Amino acid sequence: MPSYKAPVEDVKFLLNDVFHFDRYNNLPGFADAAQDVREAILDEAAKFAEEVVQPLNRIGDLEGCTRHDDGRVTTPKGFKDAFKQLGEGGWLGLVGPAEYGGQGLPVTLGQSVAEFMMGANMAFSMYSGLTQGAMAALLVHGSPEQKQKFIPNMIAGKWSGTMNLTEPHCGTDLGLMRTKAVKQADGSYKITGTKIFISGGEQDLTENIVHLVLARIEGAPAGIKGVSLFVVPKVSINADGSLGARNGVSCGSIEHKMGIHGNSTCVMNFDNSTGWLVGEENKGMNAMFVMMNEARLGVGMQGLAQSEVAYQNAVAYAKDRLQGRSLTGAKAPEKPADPIIVHPDIRRALMSMRAFNEAARALVVWTSLKSDVAHRSDDAKERQSADDHMGLLTPVIKGVLTDVGFANTVAAQQVFGGHGYIAEWGMEQFVRDARIAMIYEGANGIQGLDLVGRKLPKDGGRAAMGFFAEVAAFAKDNAGDDMKPYVAPLSTALGHLQQATGWLMQNGLAKPDNAGAASTDYMHLFGLVVLAYMWAKMARVANDKIAAGDNSDYIKAKLVTGRFFMERMLPETATHLARIQSGAATLMELPAEVF
Amino acid sequence: MPSYKAPVEDVKFLLNDVFHFDRYNNLPGFADAAQDVREAILDEAAKFAEEVVQPLNRIGDLEGCTRHDDGRVTTPKGFKDAFKQLGEGGWLGLVGPAEYGGQGLPVTLGQSVAEFMMGANMAFSMYSGLTQGAMAALLVHGSPEQKQKFIPNMIAGKWSGTMNLTEPHCGTDLGLMRTKAVKQADGSYKITGTKIFISGGEQDLTENIVHLVLARIEGAPAGIKGVSLFVVPKVSINADGSLGARNGVSCGSIEHKMGIHGNSTCVMNFDNSTGWLVGEENKGMNAMFVMMNEARLGVGMQGLAQSEVAYQNAVAYAKDRLQGRSLTGAKAPEKPADPIIVHPDIRRALMSMRAFNEAARALVVWTSLKSDVAHRSDDAKERQSADDHMGLLTPVIKGVLTDVGFANTVAAQQVFGGHGYIAEWGMEQFVRDARIAMIYEGANGIQGLDLVGRKLPKDGGRAAMGFFAEVAAFAKDNAGDDMKPYVAPLSTALGHLQQATGWLMQNGLAKPDNAGAASTDYMHLFGLVVLAYMWAKMARVANDKIAAGDNSDYIKAKLVTGRFFMERMLPETATHLARIQSGAATLMELPAEVF
Repeated sequence: MPSYKAPVEDVKFLLNDVFHFDRYNNLPGFADAAQDVREAILDEAAKFAEEVVQPLNRIGDLEGCTRHDDGRVTTPKGFKDAFKQLGEGGWLGLVGPAEYGGQGLPVTLGQSVAEFMMGANMAFSMYSGLTQGAMAALLVHGSPEQKQKFIPNMIAGKWSGTMNLTEPHCGTDLGLMRTKAVKQADGSYKITGTKIFISGGEQDLTENIVHLVLARIEGAPAGIKGVSLFVVPKVSINADGSLGARNGVSCGSIEHKMGIHGNSTCVMNFDNSTGWLVGEENKGMNAMFVMMNEARLGVGMQGLAQSEVAYQNAVAYAKDRLQGRSLTGAKAPEKPADPIIVHPDIRRALMSMRAFNEAARALVVWTSLKSDVAHRSDDAKERQSADDHMGLLTPVIKGVLTDVGFANTVAAQQVFGGHGYIAEWGMEQFVRDARIAMIYEGANGIQGLDLVGRKLPKDGGRAAMGFFAEVAAFAKDNAGDDMKPYVAPLSTALGHLQQATGWLMQNGLAKPDNAGAASTDYMHLFGLVVLAYMWAKMARVANDKIAAGDNSDYIKAKLVTGRFFMERMLPETATHLARIQSGAATLMELPAEVF
Repeated sequence: MPSYKAPVEDVKFLLNDVFHFDRYNNLPGFADAAQDVREAILDEAAKFAEEVVQPLNRIGDLEGCTRHDDGRVTTPKGFKDAFKQLGEGGWLGLVGPAEYGGQGLPVTLGQSVAEFMMGANMAFSMYSGLTQGAMAALLVHGSPEQKQKFIPNMIAGKWSGTMNLTEPHCGTDLGLMRTKAVKQADGSYKITGTKIFISGGEQDLTENIVHLVLARIEGAPAGIKGVSLFVVPKVSINADGSLGARNGVSCGSIEHKMGIHGNSTCVMNFDNSTGWLVGEENKGMNAMFVMMNEARLGVGMQGLAQSEVAYQNAVAYAKDRLQGRSLTGAKAPEKPADPIIVHPDIRRALMSMRAFNEAARALVVWTSLKSDVAHRSDDAKERQSADDHMGLLTPVIKGVLTDVGFANTVAAQQVFGGHGYIAEWGMEQFVRDARIAMIYEGANGIQGLDLVGRKLPKDGGRAAMGFFAEVAAFAKDNAGDDMKPYVAPLSTALGHLQQATGWLMQNGLAKPDNAGAASTDYMHLFGLVVLAYMWAKMARVANDKIAAGDNSDYIKAKLVTGRFFMERMLPETATHLARIQSGAATLMELPAEVF
């Protein structure tokens, strides 16, 4: 049976030493999260994730969700109680405003807590993750009345939230949407249509479900510019806040999926259901886009979280499993064979996961801080710069962390040999669960296109230029010998990224297929550079600490793992550059009929 | 529901035009497989795979196998009848000797037929695949009496075969084996022990099961040099050939696995079961090694086969699914959106699969021909050269075709977006089924070590030097402009492979960890070069055909797909070389306790 230990030490190192959380004390909420407070919160969250949430992971996979004939959906045993504890423990309101019962703490802290929950049990964590996503949308776009009506009960864990976008014929291309909204005399709307792939669309965890639904108001413009956002509660709410009659929304069926069995994925039928407009008419996509950064950051973190838990279990197995002898002579001569962690190829797999996980976590923490700055700073220039960062790096985080995170669950499974393929060992569940993160919240191909087609050229390339300048300045400021093993490869890789960017500017505008053909490789090239930058920053801190007398294994390991990344993982930038520069010709030449 | 079309045209092109099957008519069996005969066989096999075997693929996944309290195992509905047809149709005896009821045809033909069965239904094809593996072992190492006793019924499909190697504490390291064999007065042995992961160890397809079992004879030397091979029938066989009493072998449980649900994976208990020595005492591993090349070739082909069927279904979906518009203007303006095959990033995914599949198939056909030469030629030098090829390329085929084949099933699933994650679409089954091929028959890490530690240095590197010389000679002979897009990148990649080989010779012998640290990358580097060589050979044929007036889409597509491989996939050789040359230092530096 797999186990999970939340990476608390790593998060503390990142918050305290690498990204200097306390320097943001001018932002609302940060002073309430001073070192002792936030460390206590992280310790408590780790305990909850490890002791309450993780033990339900395998049960959730085995039992799955059941839809009954009357449309009710039952979640796996233990989920309801754990969700109740989540609400009662205040975990759903960590970053929510105090006026609605939240604690108003920085998103950065909330994201680290979210990583622990996702690592413990991805399917379970989606119920709370989507609830928080729906809350975020209502907080930004909802009317004061809507906020007051929904948020406090969502923070308390009494009501959950969902996002209803996809329809059978329209996933990526939301302009094809058909769900209709008809305005009523009282200002409400009657909403009719079918939505698919709705995570937590129906469940038995909460007494009400707050559905956020994209639909087209009668007579709205065609395509994506005629889509509006609505809030549609499962159970209508009386004026006094008590629950009234069932609304016309029901779960038609649940999907049988490759993984995340513990989360109900529903076909939702809206049948003349009553909903209220959130934000402006026909501006539903704007409302979506605002939340998308946080949602995609969260999905990227699911990739990291599954990679982390898979890595931990692969390490434990590699230390325990005796098979063969070290190439340099027996390391455990008293045993019938050496533990397989002595074998370089096993090390290669473990170090690859480790080097990715630690840098990916740094990237998420760094970007979460930018999110806090973007939303909380009163300095317009700081906000703009943080927003640039978010916009640029969100598709990179979503696409790269889920692609590599999934690949790492496969690599971790491989360490187990035949046992990795057997369900009871639990490794294959990580593979099946992690797989979805590459698909939902914008399939990774879409992330690449978003990066290349939208985020890169935006504002004359300001965000990308800013990032390149920051990395170049870091390299210049860290030219000493102790940093050479990190800064030299980082500079080479940055050069590849800049070349690729130049190539895109010259070749992607005139022939857009060149940009489309480059997008996935450009996203991964960008990811490698930004992860390398994270390693360089961590190495800087580690070198300083060692110079100041720190002799801990933890800090020494950072330097080794960072070098592994630079020597073994970063060279792939050259391949991505070569692919990008080969252009679209060989991709597009075959007529579709020849396939 | 997924469909499958056996790649018959591709196999015919490879046999007829690329590898000139008819030039081998001096070898036994080849003259019986003249073009019209072998094409009729391929067409029939395709029909059987598509119409009988493929429709059972999803049923097999859903229903799985059931072990009953009395130890019987039931396979999914339809499997028994299909297996009967397989025997009656002569498919199990295609390459078996005529004296035992086989048709004595070349292994090359048998392997192509096997690819069709594997693409149609991997779990089902394993029952016949393992039966043929067991037959091959008996044919090489069994006594005349053993052959007569077992082979005819196996060819007829009345009895199946299994391989019993793994024990709970010993997978890769078979020297740790504990199963015991005690010699009896009549020359038989009493065998006692537990074997795990036994594919088809118990089933309801056949009236008897011929278990080949590795065990240690009482008093045998420790480790791998004390392991012998035994044949242990499930039901004992009377002197007249009729079935007698049950032998002391039974299925203790079956595994719940990630995939290949239609194949029973059994824990087998041997309890004083009666077996007979196959080959010599303590030479069990030799017997295994002889079969391993074919078995590993077969597993590599499973990777290709799953990649092929996943690719076919991704293509069908990409032509059908309407979403978004082409970056270069609407391609289907009459429809609400364009089919997604217009998008370059979808093309990138499809072309990557296609370029791999076609080259991998060429590599398998080429290597199968070498297998026929190695076993059937009367020219010792030809046999040696073919044997060199088999030894060198078998780990490459097993490791690379299953790693990339699995990655391709994931990429094909991705083309389906959210639907790829839903079981009823069938794409996630390909991912789950393909995953095992990276693990069994020697986990892929072991393939890399076999290549670097055993096959490369063998006979002073004769096999590798022979391969390098062949590729270099091809490049020299094809220096014309029409071949430049293929030969120039091939030569660069060959250079990388030679550099890596040189580095290994200089750094791997003194510090074996350097070889272990390089092994997986070296295997994939080798794979890229040999697949590029396959493309260059196919491009040569295509160019010649076009020069001779062939204007078919099939032939023109070969040239485009080959260029895609050269421009988009081959550049990765540089990354592998960089990783290899970085050595073992950063892998091995962290003490195990720090992980």
